[in-house]
Amino acid sequence: MYPILTVGSVAFDSIKTPCGEASRVVGGAATYFSVAASFFTDVRMVAVVGDDFTEEQMRVFSGRRIDLTGLQRVSGETFRWKGEYSVDCNSRETIYTHLNVFDQFRPVLPESYRSTPFVFLANIHPALQLEVLDQVRAPRFVAADTMNYWIEGTPDELGQVIGRVDALVINDTEARELSGESNLVKAARAIQRMGPALLVIKRGEHGVLVTRDRGFFAAPAMPLEKVSDPTGAGDTFAGGFMGFLASAAEITDTVITRAIIAGSALASFSVEDFGLDRLLRLTPDELRDRFAEFKRLTHFDAL
Amino acid sequence: MYPILTVGSVAFDSIKTPCGEASRVVGGAATYFSVAASFFTDVRMVAVVGDDFTEEQMRVFSGRRIDLTGLQRVSGETFRWKGEYSVDCNSRETIYTHLNVFDQFRPVLPESYRSTPFVFLANIHPALQLEVLDQVRAPRFVAADTMNYWIEGTPDELGQVIGRVDALVINDTEARELSGESNLVKAARAIQRMGPALLVIKRGEHGVLVTRDRGFFAAPAMPLEKVSDPTGAGDTFAGGFMGFLASAAEITDTVITRAIIAGSALASFSVEDFGLDRLLRLTPDELRDRFAEFKRLTHFDAL
Repeated sequence: MYPILTVGSVAFDSIKTPCGEASRVVGGAATYFSVAASFFTDVRMVAVVGDDFTEEQMRVFSGRRIDLTGLQRVSGETFRWKGEYSVDCNSRETIYTHLNVFDQFRPVLPESYRSTPFVFLANIHPALQLEVLDQVRAPRFVAADTMNYWIEGTPDELGQVIGRVDALVINDTEARELSGESNLVKAARAIQRMGPALLVIKRGEHGVLVTRDRGFFAAPAMPLEKVSDPTGAGDTFAGGFMGFLASAAEITDTVITRAIIAGSALASFSVEDFGLDRLLRLTPDELRDRFAEFKRLTHFDAL
Repeated sequence: MYPILTVGSVAFDSIKTPCGEASRVVGGAATYFSVAASFFTDVRMVAVVGDDFTEEQMRVFSGRRIDLTGLQRVSGETFRWKGEYSVDCNSRETIYTHLNVFDQFRPVLPESYRSTPFVFLANIHPALQLEVLDQVRAPRFVAADTMNYWIEGTPDELGQVIGRVDALVINDTEARELSGESNLVKAARAIQRMGPALLVIKRGEHGVLVTRDRGFFAAPAMPLEKVSDPTGAGDTFAGGFMGFLASAAEITDTVITRAIIAGSALASFSVEDFGLDRLLRLTPDELRDRFAEFKRLTHFDAL
């Protein structure tokens, strides 16, 4: 089992979905990622919060295997985001994004973080992702997320990141835009040629598509009767996936497919309630049961 | 192994996709269904063609386990359809639909068809689907397809059909419209309450979602580098699914899941070339290999 380092946002989210609303709840990619990954391994977080982030709000991290040595607390307001989802929760509109203290954020890795063998660069400016990579020593496995904003706005820096990672964890729209290919198979091949041997394409309610040495692996999303809030589902998936990988002795195809299911299981819980609420009360037994449910959902006997 | 009866359209299709064009090729739901199902069992077809349907064109059925006793040949032109697909092949526009001889079609079952144990009612007017059901004697298993046009236009007759079938094989848009539920799990439950114990929801490039006694089964579509022509993929899937079911001694959950994969495998071939071309040159060995590929695509080891 190896510890995992992550860099990304910690935020206050305000969320409106067809199921209800939540105001100023703790969110952010690094938060969802860390809580999810901590089900499987020790997490070291690099992020920033303002002085409005209270002890009460810090409790989302407490009692978990999350090292906060790298969490900077600076004067000013914490990153704030507000989003509103469509009726079927498959699309959302950003009402506002206030970067606040995140605007001046420069990731600084404490000495105790620098030899972390697993690294996940959540969706932030690729220049910052590169700064993190420059501070870690010979990592075993590095993965990154990104978004259309960086694909369009900073393609050169993003290209450098992609050339230095073992895995890219992005959604299908991003994969198509990054590669310029509308066919996902061709998109995957094109992105692999840019660097990462492993490409994980998130397809929301349609699950995940993964490249492996011996061909694609596809996992459906768990069919859910109620999706309360999709916020953070992708970061939760990434946390479960990377946390599971880091918890294994070796990265084999078997481990990769199980890690995909672990991430999918965590994400399927995450959306059941607002913000982090469902993840925070999730038990290891429930997670194991959901993993077994995925097996029942997808299993068929060979001919 | 049981024979299967199907009723539906035989047509001349003109198709334009990003990969090319085909003009006046043999198509129609009953055609795709029958060719696919005949990989697994004997098929009895009820349909109509005009006197422009040549011996040459009849060859798509020859050398296969397809009984054409119920194929009516009448004076006039065969049903013609022309469609054009979007760049990603996920949507299409109908350029024209000329019903021609199909307009006056009334399904008449030859005496030799009336005790067929498996029945598939392809997407035609629900009144005609009911006429077929009135002519068959105590079938073991009946399934139907339908479309938005009948859901909106003839809800009462469609409701009677749905109340008399064991399975409904429709796409996700149709499932949502039929049930009035945007959530697919709720949609599935609502449709099951209308009659069919088994609901098969086709999701195109995202695969298939199925209700079973012990919960959902989800199968992805095979990721394909090239989709030449999606025409008939849904009917091919239905043919493979129903043909496989009919070829089994008993309908168990294990058989249902394998039948879903059999249908998915056939559909994945169908889209590789225009019209029926790929299906017509498909070998049983290739089909078995694709089935095994689906196993590799989806398999993961339990924890």
